[in-house]
Amino acid sequence: MGFNEAKSAFVPEDATKFESFEPAIQAYNQDVVNQMEKFDPEFYAKCVAEIPTAEILDSQPINAISFLSLLSPQEQTIVAEFTIEDLTQKQLSGELTAVAIAKAFIKASIVAQLTTNCVMQFMIPEALQRAQELDDYLQANHKLVGPFHGVVVSLKEHMNVKDKITCASYVAYLTNIPTNEAVSITILYKMGAVFHARTAQPQGIMHLDTWNNISGRTRNPRSTRLSPGGSSGGESAMVAMRGSVIGVGSDIGGSIRAPAAFTDIFGIRPTTRRISLMNGLSSGKGQESIVAVQGPLARSIDELDTYMRVYINEGKPWLYDPLCVPLQWREPKLPKKIRIGVLYDDNLVTPFPAITRGMKSTVAKLSETAEFEFVNLNPKWFSEKEMVDIYTTNLRLYTCDGNKVQLEMWGPSGEPLLPLTKHYMKFGGGKELSIYDNKMLNAQRDALKVEMLQKYFSDVDFILSPTYNGPAEMPAESLYWGYTSFWNLLDYPNVVFPVNVAHDVKKDAQIPELKQNMYEKMVWYKENGDIRYDPESYIGGPVALQLTGNRFCDEDVVALTKKFVTTLGIERR
Amino acid sequence: MGFNEAKSAFVPEDATKFESFEPAIQAYNQDVVNQMEKFDPEFYAKCVAEIPTAEILDSQPINAISFLSLLSPQEQTIVAEFTIEDLTQKQLSGELTAVAIAKAFIKASIVAQLTTNCVMQFMIPEALQRAQELDDYLQANHKLVGPFHGVVVSLKEHMNVKDKITCASYVAYLTNIPTNEAVSITILYKMGAVFHARTAQPQGIMHLDTWNNISGRTRNPRSTRLSPGGSSGGESAMVAMRGSVIGVGSDIGGSIRAPAAFTDIFGIRPTTRRISLMNGLSSGKGQESIVAVQGPLARSIDELDTYMRVYINEGKPWLYDPLCVPLQWREPKLPKKIRIGVLYDDNLVTPFPAITRGMKSTVAKLSETAEFEFVNLNPKWFSEKEMVDIYTTNLRLYTCDGNKVQLEMWGPSGEPLLPLTKHYMKFGGGKELSIYDNKMLNAQRDALKVEMLQKYFSDVDFILSPTYNGPAEMPAESLYWGYTSFWNLLDYPNVVFPVNVAHDVKKDAQIPELKQNMYEKMVWYKENGDIRYDPESYIGGPVALQLTGNRFCDEDVVALTKKFVTTLGIERR
Repeated sequence: MGFNEAKSAFVPEDATKFESFEPAIQAYNQDVVNQMEKFDPEFYAKCVAEIPTAEILDSQPINAISFLSLLSPQEQTIVAEFTIEDLTQKQLSGELTAVAIAKAFIKASIVAQLTTNCVMQFMIPEALQRAQELDDYLQANHKLVGPFHGVVVSLKEHMNVKDKITCASYVAYLTNIPTNEAVSITILYKMGAVFHARTAQPQGIMHLDTWNNISGRTRNPRSTRLSPGGSSGGESAMVAMRGSVIGVGSDIGGSIRAPAAFTDIFGIRPTTRRISLMNGLSSGKGQESIVAVQGPLARSIDELDTYMRVYINEGKPWLYDPLCVPLQWREPKLPKKIRIGVLYDDNLVTPFPAITRGMKSTVAKLSETAEFEFVNLNPKWFSEKEMVDIYTTNLRLYTCDGNKVQLEMWGPSGEPLLPLTKHYMKFGGGKELSIYDNKMLNAQRDALKVEMLQKYFSDVDFILSPTYNGPAEMPAESLYWGYTSFWNLLDYPNVVFPVNVAHDVKKDAQIPELKQNMYEKMVWYKENGDIRYDPESYIGGPVALQLTGNRFCDEDVVALTKKFVTTLGIERR
Repeated sequence: MGFNEAKSAFVPEDATKFESFEPAIQAYNQDVVNQMEKFDPEFYAKCVAEIPTAEILDSQPINAISFLSLLSPQEQTIVAEFTIEDLTQKQLSGELTAVAIAKAFIKASIVAQLTTNCVMQFMIPEALQRAQELDDYLQANHKLVGPFHGVVVSLKEHMNVKDKITCASYVAYLTNIPTNEAVSITILYKMGAVFHARTAQPQGIMHLDTWNNISGRTRNPRSTRLSPGGSSGGESAMVAMRGSVIGVGSDIGGSIRAPAAFTDIFGIRPTTRRISLMNGLSSGKGQESIVAVQGPLARSIDELDTYMRVYINEGKPWLYDPLCVPLQWREPKLPKKIRIGVLYDDNLVTPFPAITRGMKSTVAKLSETAEFEFVNLNPKWFSEKEMVDIYTTNLRLYTCDGNKVQLEMWGPSGEPLLPLTKHYMKFGGGKELSIYDNKMLNAQRDALKVEMLQKYFSDVDFILSPTYNGPAEMPAESLYWGYTSFWNLLDYPNVVFPVNVAHDVKKDAQIPELKQNMYEKMVWYKENGDIRYDPESYIGGPVALQLTGNRFCDEDVVALTKKFVTTLGIERR
């Protein structure tokens, strides 16, 4: 069955059908407003009065984080200053209660919602009740429930919450109410976490942006007219806004890493099978060519480390999810002299000037430390021709079923297809492949995995590269996934970290020498042949880099990031 | 593209084309004869004189192991009595040399070949040279190369050997000479192993029997007219004949376990991703719905344990193969009271009487030990209807590309398709599926994996079941894979072990009550509706059972098998 047949079998974009879902959409969104208002009517009114209108936020490079001044000084301290360790210790010592912590983060998340529109569903009453139970437990037992006692965690909405609508931004799934819950939620709950908000993902969960037909588009806290990245852009906005301590995202092509980079925070895409993805809604079921993975976003690398260690070693996800490997989060092993390959450019799409500048200044600064040895990987990297082939394979594997599963999930609502959805559907041609062709592409992928191990990781211990070709994009303009999706194809783990470099309209105005391949043209040129790159667009856009390690050596990637962060003087966000 | 189109694109069975490959086949087989003769002309002549003709071996239930009397008493002791530990210790103490060990096993493997036709390619000169190098090393350095120093290991032929024909029984691949070698060979070589023979697998490596168009059919050492199982039937015959200490096989539907059971030895199908399959020839590349796995066959459970521990903990396959998980072979963890679910019947195909008798007597004997608690799983197991559905899914996933890869590999030689090849090609209908359908079947499989964990392994620690519906089959009659392939579909690890029960013409004559489903009919009835089961066929056929544990708990399955073996008094074979 070809693409057209598939399309006819699963028709999206039916305005009449879509209209019939309007009441469900409105009710769903109204609940967000109601919960904010009910929590603290006075605070809510003050926020609404002070925070600019959507029109202004959408059109101006406003730093939304400044609106956290709407919180009391003590609340500001709680959400801004305290790490997981601080929060739990201060509860143990009696300095803070789980309820006080929850209230502070709920307020920050309300500011986050009103500025960035990052929330799909609040769970404020549940969070407050849970926090009270935690306080009661601590008082009665003189100990914490677990290492995340009272720690406020936001959840990408497509993770199943029992008895709550779970739609994954598919309009047709606004009636979907799971009877089970995501394994990760079970684990985090056992460790003491408090859940207050479920955050936005784009249509089909397949944009490096966050825009859907239910909650609309999410904004970037660093500049509200920019995209927060995607698909975990609700999480990146929430965490960067200090609306939660940890945001649980997921990544099949860059969906944790692009959002982390676009909002200047930290994110990890672990090797698959260490963190559970079980019990969630997506188009990915039964798809194995490129496997999605769940992972945290946070404001410091130490908290990512804590999350991974506690989740794996104490949570033991393999007890719930047979796809998880019972591999401990071990002590890191770093060589005395750490050899790092630097990929300034992936030989396919030239990064925007801010990225290249950030790469160079970071490598220069880190090179001052004798412990690190940097080697330019570009001359040894896959050629432009090879990269065109690899990236095309990458894209073809995403759409290898001719988008049938996606169309089947969009179809019943008739919801319109957004620009980046249409962009995604044409990935690699968007044609349905045969199983034979799929196997051959899988085999090419497996050969690449081996080549990465034997040719590159025999020479270097880590690879440092851009996370994305530019700083945060304007909405619906994140076109190229290659800097991140390459590592999903090969399944090598990455950490994204800020480097205290931001786009600069003057410094980053010069167009670099460009290549001729189709992906370079897609990114750098408009359809009429003019240059698309406009330095004015990226005001407020940060530069965050991507560090990649060997398979299942996630611990070492985190450990080296810690060293980088210390050397570069990167503070908790 | 449907099945017929695929067939027309990759035509097998072209007699003229096949004829042109005759010289290559003859040269390939002649080399086996030449190597045997050249090694020791006198011994070879004596063997040829004493061992019955192929016609007699094919038609009578001859125990081939008795012909090991052709070896000298000392050689018989070496091949029969000494474990891996014994062999290495006796080299260290100077009691044995690697060359003496190699010579004894080469002789046994010649007897194995002349009785069972288990070899595709000998590597006798290489083995002798290697053994001499090992002796020289030990003399010069007063230590062993590694824990397998001088241990003779046979290799399923589809594993790449550098610069040697590697055909995987595909006639068209008699010209295939790899430039790399199987990762497992690299690892075993580093540990000191000696390789002397590469063993037979069936056409397409997809029968539970061993018969191909190059080397012909392999016989069962326990009764030469029976099948040795397959697809690792060359290995089971070789190991049961004491032609090697360890046989390296592979399993995607029962291909280690059926051969181990048919020849009354031990075999393990580990959880995938612990042992490397990298660098080998098969139709499996890029196929992920049911993943093949490599594993050892041996004459004792202790040696399987040693193999797994050394291979994983010292071999570290993840340093070579990015698909391997860096998970140590840990100390086993068994509960004080071990609860074992017993599946006398899989609710789909009723086992032959010898199997049921062996299951019952084994459970009865083991139940005398207070440490074991047995619970009948049948009432709680998937219903007959569910099992029909599960097994059909299982089969459809094997042939989901409409057999295109297989046809592409058979096509160029025009080789005829053997009966069990045709049987395999029709698995689950043999139709090409769409990627969409493949995903849905994968999702069904993943749900089953979860159900196995949550419903069954929450109640029991292990599951004991038949390995196959009967004792060893007559050639080309191994039709039903379900007892083993079920565990490939779900990827739970198994060990197969003998229980000192063999088929008995009198005791096992009674036809049990039968079910009505299509798979039961396929196994129990002829096409004309008569009962197919004839107790006379299975003379010499052993009963060996299958123990299954939780995912990645291979160590515990091995540890419990050790306890069973001790309790049952099962000696090294």
